[in-house]
Amino acid sequence: MQNQNNSRRRFIKQAGLATVAANLTIFAGTKAEPMSAEQPFIHHVYFWLKNPGSKEDYQKLLEGLKKLSKVKTIHQHYIGKPADTRREVIDSSYSVSWLLFFKNKADQDSYQTDPVHLKFVEECSNLWSRVVVYDTVEAV
Amino acid sequence: MQNQNNSRRRFIKQAGLATVAANLTIFAGTKAEPMSAEQPFIHHVYFWLKNPGSKEDYQKLLEGLKKLSKVKTIHQHYIGKPADTRREVIDSSYSVSWLLFFKNKADQDSYQTDPVHLKFVEECSNLWSRVVVYDTVEAV
Repeated sequence: MQNQNNSRRRFIKQAGLATVAANLTIFAGTKAEPMSAEQPFIHHVYFWLKNPGSKEDYQKLLEGLKKLSKVKTIHQHYIGKPADTRREVIDSSYSVSWLLFFKNKADQDSYQTDPVHLKFVEECSNLWSRVVVYDTVEAV
Repeated sequence: MQNQNNSRRRFIKQAGLATVAANLTIFAGTKAEPMSAEQPFIHHVYFWLKNPGSKEDYQKLLEGLKKLSKVKTIHQHYIGKPADTRREVIDSSYSVSWLLFFKNKADQDSYQTDPVHLKFVEECSNLWSRVVVYDTVEAV
């Protein structure tokens, strides 16, 4: 258990969530499962555009994501595109990468139903043909 | 161009790469394409274990990744597992997520051939049946 605690503290420190770490220290001896409630949450979305050659559609999606980044429960966000690396294991077929860090799962849940998110889906979902999402929490 | 510069500075700030941002400011007027040379690089790997039910294999992979995290060109690393979210667009079939931030592509290239990385592949590649990599740079 000590090892798990140390490992989680390292993960939280790496994620830059010092305030969360402080809360965990305070709560560790007083609640049943305080750590899982405050576990940092990584949400990585890959979009494939319907018209991957359309610079206009690409820019529309980027603009939509910039607006979406205003959702208050997002801790950090990164809007990306495929790097120019090419190896057998690399999937570079997507158009846009949308990587989010949340302080905990509750913040991610809130993001899913945030009006700004719903408006983004309404305005931009016609642009993509495929979306793949990987949701990740710390491995222990 | 001004917008692109502002956007890049925001991205770099979000990535916590203050020193890189400082270099960009210094170099901006003096080199042809200084920014692309220092563009932050996100490398996200998903592993599917050969024996997804084996706690032993899972722990072996985690231990391998902890050793791998010592590669000096890695700026930040996160070792994860699937969250308990389940929607049609979510792929939660992988076993382990390995998310890396590099300060630039050169650091990522160096990581690929680092002896610690080669040793990790030698010691751990028998554990997985599938690997998918998404390499990402800032979208502009």
